[in-house]
Order: sequence, then C-alpha cells, then structure tokens
Amino acid sequence: MFSTRSPSEKLEMGSEKRKRIETDAFGEIGVPADKYWGAQTQRSLQNFDIGRESEKLPRSLIVAFGVLKKAAAIVNATYGLDPKIAGAIQEASQEVIDGKLFDHFPLVVFQTGSGTQSNMNANEVISNRAIEKLGFEMGKKHPVHPNDHVNMSQSSNDTFPTVMHIAAVMEITFKLIPALTDLRDALDIKSKDFSKIIKIGRTHLQDATPLTLGQEFSGYVQQLTYGLERVKQTLPRLSLLAQGGTAVGTGLNTKKGFDVAVAKEVSNITGLSFQTAPNKFEALAAHDAIVEASGALNTLAASLFKIANDIRYLGSGPRCGYGELSLPENEPGSSIMPGKVNPTQCEALTMVCAQVFGNHTTITMAGASGQFELNVFKPLMAKNLLLSIRLLADSCKSFNLHCVQGIQANEKKINALLHESLMLVTALNPKIGYDAASKVAKNAHKKGLTLKQSCIELGYLDEKEFDEWVRPEKMIGPKP
Amino acid sequence: MFSTRSPSEKLEMGSEKRKRIETDAFGEIGVPADKYWGAQTQRSLQNFDIGRESEKLPRSLIVAFGVLKKAAAIVNATYGLDPKIAGAIQEASQEVIDGKLFDHFPLVVFQTGSGTQSNMNANEVISNRAIEKLGFEMGKKHPVHPNDHVNMSQSSNDTFPTVMHIAAVMEITFKLIPALTDLRDALDIKSKDFSKIIKIGRTHLQDATPLTLGQEFSGYVQQLTYGLERVKQTLPRLSLLAQGGTAVGTGLNTKKGFDVAVAKEVSNITGLSFQTAPNKFEALAAHDAIVEASGALNTLAASLFKIANDIRYLGSGPRCGYGELSLPENEPGSSIMPGKVNPTQCEALTMVCAQVFGNHTTITMAGASGQFELNVFKPLMAKNLLLSIRLLADSCKSFNLHCVQGIQANEKKINALLHESLMLVTALNPKIGYDAASKVAKNAHKKGLTLKQSCIELGYLDEKEFDEWVRPEKMIGPKP
Amino acid sequence: MFSTRSPSEKLEMGSEKRKRIETDAFGEIGVPADKYWGAQTQRSLQNFDIGRESEKLPRSLIVAFGVLKKAAAIVNATYGLDPKIAGAIQEASQEVIDGKLFDHFPLVVFQTGSGTQSNMNANEVISNRAIEKLGFEMGKKHPVHPNDHVNMSQSSNDTFPTVMHIAAVMEITFKLIPALTDLRDALDIKSKDFSKIIKIGRTHLQDATPLTLGQEFSGYVQQLTYGLERVKQTLPRLSLLAQGGTAVGTGLNTKKGFDVAVAKEVSNITGLSFQTAPNKFEALAAHDAIVEASGALNTLAASLFKIANDIRYLGSGPRCGYGELSLPENEPGSSIMPGKVNPTQCEALTMVCAQVFGNHTTITMAGASGQFELNVFKPLMAKNLLLSIRLLADSCKSFNLHCVQGIQANEKKINALLHESLMLVTALNPKIGYDAASKVAKNAHKKGLTLKQSCIELGYLDEKEFDEWVRPEKMIGPKP
Amino acid sequence: MFSTRSPSEKLEMGSEKRKRIETDAFGEIGVPADKYWGAQTQRSLQNFDIGRESEKLPRSLIVAFGVLKKAAAIVNATYGLDPKIAGAIQEASQEVIDGKLFDHFPLVVFQTGSGTQSNMNANEVISNRAIEKLGFEMGKKHPVHPNDHVNMSQSSNDTFPTVMHIAAVMEITFKLIPALTDLRDALDIKSKDFSKIIKIGRTHLQDATPLTLGQEFSGYVQQLTYGLERVKQTLPRLSLLAQGGTAVGTGLNTKKGFDVAVAKEVSNITGLSFQTAPNKFEALAAHDAIVEASGALNTLAASLFKIANDIRYLGSGPRCGYGELSLPENEPGSSIMPGKVNPTQCEALTMVCAQVFGNHTTITMAGASGQFELNVFKPLMAKNLLLSIRLLADSCKSFNLHCVQGIQANEKKINALLHESLMLVTALNPKIGYDAASKVAKNAHKKGLTLKQSCIELGYLDEKEFDEWVRPEKMIGPKP
Repeated sequence: MFSTRSPSEKLEMGSEKRKRIETDAFGEIGVPADKYWGAQTQRSLQNFDIGRESEKLPRSLIVAFGVLKKAAAIVNATYGLDPKIAGAIQEASQEVIDGKLFDHFPLVVFQTGSGTQSNMNANEVISNRAIEKLGFEMGKKHPVHPNDHVNMSQSSNDTFPTVMHIAAVMEITFKLIPALTDLRDALDIKSKDFSKIIKIGRTHLQDATPLTLGQEFSGYVQQLTYGLERVKQTLPRLSLLAQGGTAVGTGLNTKKGFDVAVAKEVSNITGLSFQTAPNKFEALAAHDAIVEASGALNTLAASLFKIANDIRYLGSGPRCGYGELSLPENEPGSSIMPGKVNPTQCEALTMVCAQVFGNHTTITMAGASGQFELNVFKPLMAKNLLLSIRLLADSCKSFNLHCVQGIQANEKKINALLHESLMLVTALNPKIGYDAASKVAKNAHKKGLTLKQSCIELGYLDEKEFDEWVRPEKMIGPKP
Repeated sequence: MFSTRSPSEKLEMGSEKRKRIETDAFGEIGVPADKYWGAQTQRSLQNFDIGRESEKLPRSLIVAFGVLKKAAAIVNATYGLDPKIAGAIQEASQEVIDGKLFDHFPLVVFQTGSGTQSNMNANEVISNRAIEKLGFEMGKKHPVHPNDHVNMSQSSNDTFPTVMHIAAVMEITFKLIPALTDLRDALDIKSKDFSKIIKIGRTHLQDATPLTLGQEFSGYVQQLTYGLERVKQTLPRLSLLAQGGTAVGTGLNTKKGFDVAVAKEVSNITGLSFQTAPNKFEALAAHDAIVEASGALNTLAASLFKIANDIRYLGSGPRCGYGELSLPENEPGSSIMPGKVNPTQCEALTMVCAQVFGNHTTITMAGASGQFELNVFKPLMAKNLLLSIRLLADSCKSFNLHCVQGIQANEKKINALLHESLMLVTALNPKIGYDAASKVAKNAHKKGLTLKQSCIELGYLDEKEFDEWVRPEKMIGPKP
Repeated sequence: MFSTRSPSEKLEMGSEKRKRIETDAFGEIGVPADKYWGAQTQRSLQNFDIGRESEKLPRSLIVAFGVLKKAAAIVNATYGLDPKIAGAIQEASQEVIDGKLFDHFPLVVFQTGSGTQSNMNANEVISNRAIEKLGFEMGKKHPVHPNDHVNMSQSSNDTFPTVMHIAAVMEITFKLIPALTDLRDALDIKSKDFSKIIKIGRTHLQDATPLTLGQEFSGYVQQLTYGLERVKQTLPRLSLLAQGGTAVGTGLNTKKGFDVAVAKEVSNITGLSFQTAPNKFEALAAHDAIVEASGALNTLAASLFKIANDIRYLGSGPRCGYGELSLPENEPGSSIMPGKVNPTQCEALTMVCAQVFGNHTTITMAGASGQFELNVFKPLMAKNLLLSIRLLADSCKSFNLHCVQGIQANEKKINALLHESLMLVTALNPKIGYDAASKVAKNAHKKGLTLKQSCIELGYLDEKEFDEWVRPEKMIGPKP
Repeated sequence: MFSTRSPSEKLEMGSEKRKRIETDAFGEIGVPADKYWGAQTQRSLQNFDIGRESEKLPRSLIVAFGVLKKAAAIVNATYGLDPKIAGAIQEASQEVIDGKLFDHFPLVVFQTGSGTQSNMNANEVISNRAIEKLGFEMGKKHPVHPNDHVNMSQSSNDTFPTVMHIAAVMEITFKLIPALTDLRDALDIKSKDFSKIIKIGRTHLQDATPLTLGQEFSGYVQQLTYGLERVKQTLPRLSLLAQGGTAVGTGLNTKKGFDVAVAKEVSNITGLSFQTAPNKFEALAAHDAIVEASGALNTLAASLFKIANDIRYLGSGPRCGYGELSLPENEPGSSIMPGKVNPTQCEALTMVCAQVFGNHTTITMAGASGQFELNVFKPLMAKNLLLSIRLLADSCKSFNLHCVQGIQANEKKINALLHESLMLVTALNPKIGYDAASKVAKNAHKKGLTLKQSCIELGYLDEKEFDEWVRPEKMIGPKP
C-alpha cells in the first residue's frame, strides 16, 4: 500500500531479472544479465536500499570516473600494463565519459563512506565492458580484472576524492562559470540601459535618498563579479588530485611518478589543468577543498538571494506593490486567480539558494568529520557540492533567460514615487542643517505636505531656493 | 561535450516526440502525445530546466495529490459536481495513488514557489486520464476540466500545503515510525543480551568507571524511545490541512463545510486522522509545522549520529582499535586492502544524519521566508522534509537489518580492558578520600603498575582490603 | 597595540592582585585574595583564555548551580552529611541563587567539555563562602571541602547536565513563556481591532484576493499560539534531571534514592516540577533534550521572522512603500537623512531570529557529537540554548512594547490599494469561468482600466451585474 | 526572583544615577552624568534591552570606530573642517582606539539593523569628549557637533560597514593569522620529530596500511597551510571600504575624493592596506565579503575539528583507548574520578569550531537578507564574524601552547599495535594477488594468527619470502 517504488526499480533491485553470476571475496552473487556491474555493486544495491529513486550518485561524478579510469589505464600502460588490456579499458572508460553507461551505475550516495562501492562499480562496469569488447565472458574477470587492471595502482581512498575534484572542476568550469557570467552580463546591460532613470532609494525599507535604477543594478553586477572571483578562487585547490595516495596517503603499491602522470592525463582528457596534491594524507583524510568550494557557493547563493528578492519586490504589484519593474510573464500564475502573473523565476532561484545553504551545512558537518587517515563522508560531500553547482548553474541560466533579459522599468511609477518622497530633504542638510531638515520632513509627514510646502511653511527657504537645492539629479553622486 | 543529460531525458523535454496540442491562458503548446500532462506542466518543464535528473518532486507528494484530488471529488459531488465527472476524477486519482502515473509527473522542485505548476500537473493528468476513461479527446478539457472540475473549490495555495502535510504524515506513519521502532527494539534486545557484560566506561575518551555493555546500549534505546515521542509529537500539527483556504486563506469560492469534509475524506482514504486547520491564513503563509517536524528529525538524526559513531568506534580494529564489538561483515571493504571489513552501515547512517542536518537548515530558511499571505518555498520545504523522513526510515531499517541485529560483544577484549583500567580507583573515594585515590592512580600510571600494586606500594590498603573495595560488579549502580 | 582587553580584565586574570594560595591535585596556585574561587577555577582561567569578555557562562546557569548545590546539601544531610556543613552550603548556595556572587564565576564557555571546571568553580566558591561563614580560613578546604562536601555524591558529569536543564526550564518558564504570551495577546488584540478593515491580499508578492487586516494578523496569532505549544512541549524532557548518574550514569558513589530526592528538592526551590531521568546513561552521553528544545526555538524564530518581516514591509514607506501600517516612532532613524523613522524593532527581532538559527546549528553539531558515556560539548550547548531563550524572551518583550502595541492601520491607504487591485476578478470565476475572468484581468492590466471597465468593455457583464458579484466584503470567507 | 541582572547593570540602564540632559530630534532625555554618550545612545539602551550582559558589540568594532572617526576628521580638515574641532575629534578618537572609553559604548548587537545607534554612540562619545577637552559643556553639541562634525560627510549606512571591514581585517591580521601560523608551525615541528615513527594507519576506523606518525601530522600541517591561504584570500575584498557611499551608495553630501582619502588615512592609522570600494551600492546593500570571510573561517574550523578530534582519539586511554599519543596534563580531570586527565584543549577547540559553524549559519542568513539599498543585519554580522575570528585565534593559541607543544608519542604502544595489524597484508598484493591476500588476512583474523602464520599455513609464502615482502618501512611510500 502507498508504495513509492516503481516497477522498473523493482527490476533494478535485481529480484526479477535474468541473472549472471559474479563473484567477490564474499562469494557468488547473481546480477542482472543485461548490466555490466559485478558482485560488489550488487551487494551494495542490496545492503544500501536508502533513498533509491532520488539519491543516486550525480552523473557528473560517473563521468569523472570515466576520465580517471581512462587516465590511469594510459599511465599504467607506461608502467607495464598489457597494451591490449589498457586499450580496452580506455575504450570502455570513454563510453562512461560519453554518458552511454549511466544505467550501469545504480548506486546511491548512502553507501560506504569512502565510496569504495562506486569505485568498484566503475571497475566492474569498465572491466566487463572491456571483456565484452575483447570477446571474452563477462563476470570471469578475465582478461580484464576489475581490481588488478582497472583499479591498478589505485585505491578507492584515492580514486574517490580524485573524481570528486575532477567533477567539481568540470562542473564549475563548464556549467557554473558560463551561466554566472551570462547572468552578470545581462544585469550589466540592464544597469546601463537604466542609467538615466532616477528613483527613490530605500533603506530599512523606508524611503531614502535617490539613486538611478542603473546604480541599483550596478550593485547586483558587482556582487556577481565578486561571486565569479570567489568561485574561481577555489579552483587552485580543487585542481589538486589525491590520486597516487592509495590506501592511506603513502602511495603504497604505486610507483613514483604515477601521481604526476595521472594528473597530466586527466588534464589532457578534460582540457583543464589538474596537478597532483602535494600532500596525499590531507587529500584523503580531509576534504577542506570541498568545504571551501561550498563556502564560495554559499556566498554566491547569499548574493543571488538578495538580488532575486529585490527584483521580486521591485516587481511587486501590479497595482498594490512597489511596481517599479515589470518582469516577463512566462506562464499562468494561479489556478484560482485569473490573470495573475508571478515572479516564479525569482522563486525558483531563491529556493535554489536555500537549498545551497542547507547543502553547505551538510558539507561542513561532513568535512569536519574525517577520522585519522580517511574521511568517510565522501559520497555525501560529492553529492551536495555537485548538486549546489548544478542548481546554481541551471537556475542562473533560467533566471537570466526567463527573467532578467525581459525586465522592464516602469518609468511612470518610478517617477511618481520619486517625487512623493520626503527623503529628498537630505539635500538640505548642508544648507539648513540636520536638525532643521528633520523638522521639515516631519512637518510634511504629519500634515501630508510636499517637502517644498513644508519648507516654505516653516520659513527655512523660499520656493526658488528650494528648487535650487532639492534636485534629484544632483543627489546621485558626491559633490565635485 | 560532457553532458549529463541522457537520451531519454531529452525526449522527456518534449523536443523529439510526437505531440498533442494543449492550451492555457497563454495559448497553445505541444506536449508529448503519450503523456497525460497539459499546457501548464509543459511550460514549467521548459521554463524550469533546473537539476532535472535528481530534483523531481518526491513521489510521496504525488501520491498525496492523488489522495487529495480523490477526496475533493468525493466532496464536490456532494456540492453539485456531476457524479459522472466526479467518478472519473476519483478513478484517475486512484491511479495516481497507486503509483501508476509517476511518469506523468515530470516537474522539478525548483518551479513556482507555491507549487502551482505541480497542482496543475495533477489537475491536468487527472482530467486527461478521466477524459480518456470517459471516451473523449485529451487536451480538450471536456468533459473534465482541470481547473473547473479537478481543482474545483481549490487553489494551489491550499492544495500544495495540504499535500505536504498528507505526504509527511503518511511517510512518518507508514515508514519512519515502524523502521525506528524496529531499530529501537533491536537495540533493546542487545541491551538485554549484554546486561551481564561489565566493561570500562569512557568519558572525555578517557578510561572511566565501569558499566555494563547492556547499560551502554540502554542509553541508545532511551534516545530512540524519546526520538519516537519527538516524531509523534509533530503529528497533531502536521495533521491539520490547509484545504479550504483557497487563494489567501479566506476560503473564497468554496462553500462552508468544504474544508471539514475534505479532511474527513482524506482520513478515510489514508486510514489516518486529519483535521481541517483552525486558521487557514497561518496554514498558507507559514509552514511552521514543517519546520517543527524537521526539527524533530534533526534531533533524531543527532541521536542516531551519536549511536552510529559509538558503535563504529567500539567496533574499531580488529586489532588496533577499541575492538569491544564485532559488527557484521556485509561486503568486501577495500579495493586495495584485502580482507578489510568496514562499518559501512554506520557510515551510511551518519551520512544520512548529516544530510538531515543540512535539509533542516534549508527548511528553516525557507520556513522563515513566508511573505504576507503566502510562503513561496513550498516545493523546497516538501522535498527536504520528505527526503529527511525517507532517508531516516530507509537507513534505520538498513542499519537495523545489516548491522545492529548482527552485533556481537567481544567479551575477551572487553574483560581485558576492564581490568587494565585505572579508573576503578574511584571505588576507593569513600574509603581513602579523593586526594589519596588520585595519588594511587597517578602512581600506577607513572610506573605502569596495576591499581592494586600502586595502592599497596603507597600503603593505603592491603591486598584484601583492595579486593574488597574494588569490585567492578559493585560499581555499576548506586549503593543500596 | 589595538588590545581589546580592559584593565579590569587584566586584574581578573589574576596577574596583578593580592593572592591567596589554593591547592588541588596539581599542587599550589595563587588566586586573587578577594575572590572565593579556588585552584581549579584559577587553572581554567589560565589555561582557557578564549573569548574572555563576551564568553562567560550564562548567569542563568550559575543560578542553577546555586539551586542544585543547595538541593544536594539538603539531601546529603539526610544521608549523613554534618548538618552544620550542610547548612553552610545551603546558605552559600542561596547567595549564588540570589545573584550575589556572579563576580566569582569568571570561567568561559570554552573550557573542558564536561563543564567540570565550572562545577568545581561552584564547589570552590560555595565551600570557601561556607568556610568564611563558619569562621574558618578560606583555601584550607576545612571544614567544608569542595569535593567531599559540596560535590558529595555528585560528579561534574551529572551536575552539569542537571544545571543545563534547570536553567533552561527556569528561563523558558519565567522569561520566554510570559514574553511570548504577552506578544501573542497583543497581536490578538490588534487582530480584533482590525477585524473590519478589508485589504488586498498578496501572494507571490502580487496582488491577490482580499482579506481583513484582522485575518492577516490572526495568522500571526495562530503562529505564536502553536509556538507556545511547541516550546511547552519540550518541558517534559527538559524537566528530567541527570543528577544521580555520577561519572558514567551508573550512580556509583551515590545511594539509592539520592536522584529522586534531589529532583524533589530542586522542584521545591524553584517552584517548578522536575523529575529524575529514567535513564542516566542517556542523560550524560546525549543531550537530545537540548537539541529538541533548540528545535522548538528555531521554529519559533522562523515564525517571528515571518511576522516581523511582514510588519516591516506593510509599514514600508512612508510614501514609496506598502504603507498599510504605521509603526511607532521610537528614535531618530538616520544620522544623515533627517526625519527618517525605521522599523528598528523588527530589525532587532529578525537579527535575534538569525542568531537563534545559528545557535541551533551549533547545538545540533554539538548534540550529535557525544562519545561513549559523555558528551563533551556541554558548556557550548548550555550557552547557545540559554542565549536563544534569553534573546527570544527579551526581543519578544521589546517588540511587543515598542512596536506591536503601537501599530496603527492606515485605512485610507489600505482602502485605496484594495480598490485598485485586479484580483477582485476572482469573484467572477463562478459567474463567467476562469478563462474569461483571466481575459478581463489581463485586458485591464494592459489598458490601465478598472476591472469593471474591462469587464464591460469585453462584454461579459454589465455594471450592475459586476457590482453585484464583485464585493470585497463578500470575498473574505467561503460561501454559506 | 531569579534575576540575572547585576546591580551595576541596573545602574548602567541609567535609572539610578546622577543625570545630564541630552537632546536629539525626539527631544530631551537624561543620561548618566559620568558617561560621554548622548541622547540617541540612551534611547537605544532603553528601547533595546535585549541580552544585555553578553551581547554588547565587540570591542574590536569600537576600536575600529575610533580609527574611522579619526581618519574622517583628518580628511574633513582638508575639506574645510575647523582644525581645532578636527584636532579634538582626533584626540578623542585616539582614546577610543586605545580602549580607554569601552565603558562608554554600552549598546548591544540587537538594535537598529544599520548600526545607526552605535555610529551615533561613537559620534556622541567623541563629540562630548572633544567638547570636554576643549573646555565646553557636554551635551550642548558645541563646539563639536556629533552629526555635523564627527559624522561629517558620513552616514551610518557607510560607516558601519566600514568599521565591520576595518575590525575584521585588524583582527584577522593581528590575531588570527599569527595564532594560526604558530599552531601550524608547532604541528610541523611535531611532524618532523615524528618522522621515523612507523604506525598503523586507520581508515573507516579499521586497521589499514602503515604510515609514519610524521606523515599523519603532515596532513594537519597541510590543512592549516591551506587554511592560512583561505583566510588571507578574503582580505582583498574585506579591505574595501564602504566609506563615501553615505546613505544609499551615491555619496550624496560627500565630496569627490573623500572616499579615497579616508581609506588612505585608515591605512595610515592601522598600518594595513585599505582601499575604497569600487561600487558603494554593493558595499551598503550586501555584505558578501563578510559571508565570504565567514566561509573561510568555517572551512578552517572544519580543519581544526578534524585535527583536534584525531588528537584526542590518538591520546585516548590511558589504558583502554588508542593510546598512541600522550597529551599534556594541565589540570585535574574529574571531580569524582581521581587521577583522571582529559583532552580538555581538544574539547575547547572543537567547541569553538561548532560555535563557528553556527555563527556561519547566522551570517549566511543575515547576508542573504539585504533589502534594496541596505542590509539591516549589520551588527549581527559584525558580532558573529568578529566572534568567530576571536575564538579561533584564542583557541589556536591555547591549543598550541597547552596541548600541541607538549604532545609526546608513545612509541612502545605504537609499535605494538603496528605489529599486530593484519593490514600489512596489502604489501602482498603485487606478490600473490588481491584475492589470495584477502584469504590470508581473513584466515588470520578468524584463527587469531599473525599474518605470517596465516600465510605459511595457507601455503602462499614461506617465512623468508614473507619477511622480505612485509616490511612496514617499505610500505610508507610508492615504489621507486
């Protein structure tokens, strides 16, 4: 009753399908005959039935496994791995990179904390696919053994942090930075378009001195310019790879130079710049670079939250809100209120930001919880960081395309509000002093007067003087 | 290059399939011919391409939509809805409840913050399926209109919070409470099994006075007993339904009694007890009950984190750790270190807890961000709460089955450690005073003596006196 | 250069004052002659110079130590403690309760994680003060010994969690609940005062269907009514005391019944209801009740954040914002903009809420980090929980007195906005259908018409029909 | 009953002291005659009685106000401010810098969200002190006016973010970086001292392949080396000052060049490098640089949490724990267990880290909540950031002095554990293969054999071969 498991997932659990026998140190186990994975993957599936449908490891991490296993095979060939085996591993790994084998990576985040089972999943899928390509029988670990060949000179303890970094750098570089740059640029165009529109400023939500709408948007542009710097600043440490540390960071069972060579091949494959980590103990036991990167995303999310919030309030109305901006209408807004249009892109973006804040809490807790030679919150950290990157990239793009580019200024409303404001009185400080100016404003507020009326009534200035001093266009910058 | 979108998802985006024309207030739009959804769902798919593969709304929420729409149809029939239409809506809704139509709910969390698009997704799917059942043409909104009939007397603003609550209560009741109860009971059995095993206590990680292993486990049992109370305590407020508030909480366009009747039907369908919320303004604009429930889960996660952490440390070794417990071996532990077995269930559980902590941050931020008559972080709150419930339920079950039930005490090791400890000296406080006892312990520590040797050497007691006073079995409770 | 240590604090560090010699297991140490504390307090002062000026343990915890030590002395007298000693301890403890000895509790939060040093601080101060009262020499531990008498049958490991609970229950009962109740009641009065004022509703920040200002406020009242329930619901578990568990929960070195008797005396002294915890292992090693209480405060803070945010937006203006409410003017608002008045009470309250959210993260992390028989984040948890309680109590009171009680409705503005809104069109759904109503609203929006004009122009209704159907006062509840 | 307010605080509230009359736009108000503050400070004291005793603004922020007001006076003199007035302001400001006037800054964090009241507190104290120095009457605002002279060309909206940045940069530079560098260096010395001690590695808390204790510590050193980079990396953006933006960022009522000149004078006074912010709108409305800095501290705290946790576990015992390290004994450990010594510095440090995590949540929420031209969570952000800096600096120093420098390796225990471990079997992978090695380990574990015995029993190797292959000292790095 009330099951949330779909029929296809029941199949995936392996209970109803044609089977192939696979083996590991624990003995034999049946796996679905049409899947490349082996015994250890199958055991994980059965032992960790946690959040199945939404909690699979991110695909960007699977792609990174493909990158790493290909790079390792290339390097291992130079250290004596049979070229035929190395070649088959590379080909199978390329299929992982190309996304052709996503269906063969069924494991969830909540498994062993080292990600060993996902490393074995990669080893098993690649070895079986390579075996198949070479014309042998899957499941026999011959001629391509998942541990001895695909995982040669590697340990889960160094491969998993390596793919965490590869995936993060790829996603940041290929998705987040372009999307964020485009959004920044779109806001910059708006800032320039709006450079002549003078509007009332608001501090404490109360009417304040004026600025241009372009100036207001320039603040958003500056936030995102810094945001880009912040994100890019995390790349030097994310680009350091743990590979070569093997089980505890010493590099036992690798050869000197293996670590450097793998980083070089990963760079070649991705077109990005990776280096081997100078200290592998840190690289296995702590994932501070992930916490740091999440911190940059957290800051970016704080920026975007503010921007999206401003824009939806400035667009509030159409008649009973601030109404200074018109946001694009993308879809019907209400299932009961006809004709309603809502700032839905702002809503999606602020929800993304709140998710990023929470992911950051998770990552921080996980990052603080390393023990001795290993941090065993690896899959969790990977999931949350990669999800934050992905959501920010996608939502920046969506917010840009479906909202920012279509924003229009309601100049009529902006102008009306500007001239009703009492805070233009600030321009009189240097003329009549703070205390007198204060009286002018309060008198106007109390009696419902304009500032000018109040100023004249109180005898501080005559009309001509007032008009000379209180000019919004003179109030949007310092005196020369 | 490096895409993480699979071919089937490209299809789902609707770009490559045979189409049917659907319409809404924005005009015509093509939707995949083999899907029941309509125009507003399709627009959301296109306007909110954010985190597609992992970020769909939880299935338990879809099921709850089925429950609600069925209940509404039953009630609307009593208020004049054509019984044939009402019947068809009920049948289609039942298919949603039964999980047969999950593929027709493609929308992600990051959409409009009211969840309007998912409410419309439910309305569209149910109306089209009902139209189909009645032998008419899908997409024509006749004879079953998504708004006028399926959404009759409803607004997204009341349906979405209603399904949030229905799903949360169902998942807590049907999944979390049973899994948690079973885990608590399994620990209780262990506590009783271990009631005679005296072991060294540890405070500040330092050797302390003894207790039984059963007493140690009784602390875990007590934590989860309270945990169950905490979770159950949230149900009274989660069981209150917003339905009947419509757009802003006033109940405009419903009839008196509609709210009460819907809550009754939802209770009938689910076999659980729901009531209508006494104040609908609160129910739409604030989701404090969700924040509260998440707080209970957060506390539960803190409990489980402590328990899992203790168990993995007590099972650390096999030779160089505490080694007091043996945990079941479920899978090979290392891709490089042969024969290694790891506390992977503890790791999965602590990762779940860290995820729950982060989800709680997200929910708190979202819950605090309601504005006027509506909180527009609804889908985000729903996702995070339902994910926390699901993950805790699944991992409690997994931890129970694959770890707790198989835990064994290493009595030999426990006993050896107990008798090496210096903290048995505490038993001498009432005999020789705190300051003298302190000297005995320090002297033993410095010289590598047993406590008895030290005590005799310092002349405080003779052997017989010592043996009479220092008896671990007398140290595990207060004096009579 | 740029020191933040004041001269008086340098004195307090003990470096420049007349000294008295005190001793502990580590030997002799000088303490300021005019202070009651002893050797262990002094060592902590010197070893933990962390955040001195702002990070002292909360005073409510010191008071709770007074309560506990008094209760223990009363009970210990029944178990054979010399009545003269017991009496002197009670008198000295009463001075602690009365706040006369705050200056003798100099320790900071960031000390030993069990709070041992603060327990010893209490033992030392009370014993020295008792010694003084009995006419003996301070520092000689005679006739009142800090460990053997003041701490009789106690361990830091049970006293500290006990005072955490005592302080939390006292602060919640005596400060938070009254302040929160008063605030709720003040909002309820406003809700009733505003029951006839019909205003535009806002969902997604966009104009929506109308409600009364009283209804809007009723949502706030309901939030706080639930908030009170949530806070009170934590009391049953906070009222359970760890006292009697001694070092690891077994109650070693106490006598049967001591735990129950202490809880009873604590109840007598405070006038509140405390019980002994049924499982002392849980009570020492986990502080889930603190995490739970913090969760309730976190939910309350989410409620208050929403309420304060609404009120400051509704009060935004005076001329360029929503302007529906007038908030009291309590102080000048700007050092540069004359006459500006800001919603400062809302700002203080929302800052408090954000602090509470962060404190909750700290408490959660700390609560999850118990190890074996002890959680060593006790002082941190105490500080953060008691700070959250205190800040919420103080700010509820301040917000009530200086803001809510003085809120006035700007009926003129409210009425003007109501009649400009397009969302009154929702009333036409049952008459002309959702799709037609949608066209009326969009047409009005595009051409700047009133709804009535648009409706007539499009030919759906004539003026009389329109006036009959579109009546805000008919739109604030369901149909009979 | 049960008050936590001390008599001196009641005095501070101004209710019981000799008074002086001060005035502001709201009229007259009495202030304590022996205090320099004026009317607006007094109003804030009365209107914001929230968390008084522990929630005063951090002193480092008061010092920064001194720096800023002095710098502004110097610059204002070049723009025409009477040199006598400017001089007196500078002198009074210098006293603020020197910490002589802390008692005159009584305001708490939870006040107006712009910090206006604290800016006025600075203006009032400095003007009154300057008036006094010039021989005039305090409270008359003559000849030194708090607004017109001390606050000349300034607004709270730009001064407060300016002092936030000044204080943060000063505290990071003068306190945190030195303390952190010293701690890193002390760990580095230990790492080198321990470079020859081979020990068992631990992954998943389970015995793993060996490494040196020096290598283990080198991971900590690397974490802090990166930590220093992360903290320093925030300085470029923290060094940008908002000063010159005045009320909304436009710089109204300042003169061109004022902003640049003030940043230069602040640099002169502090000996640090500050620049004017390139975009003042961002600088007032968003405090992303604070969120960013807090993110760096959050990462640092995650590092320190891991390090402190490792060290306390490695030092656990003395007889029933890991026991590989001996930590310094600084104080008695238990009020009930004689002779107990606890890892209290680790406990204090991990408590600090958990506080920093929570402060970061608060800062993130606050940073995301800017509205239009102003973020009104300024004092809260300042408090939490400065507290995090302070606590990390103090606790790094304390942990270094009282723990790290005194850590000793228990070589006997380390060596014994190393040779008991089964994971040395990993060295046999290249010789006998992963599967065979796995059998050796499991057989040894099952029968309680040494690895060598098991290997010979299973017939894989003879004793000589085993000794040749299994040599820990060959296992602590890659093969050449």
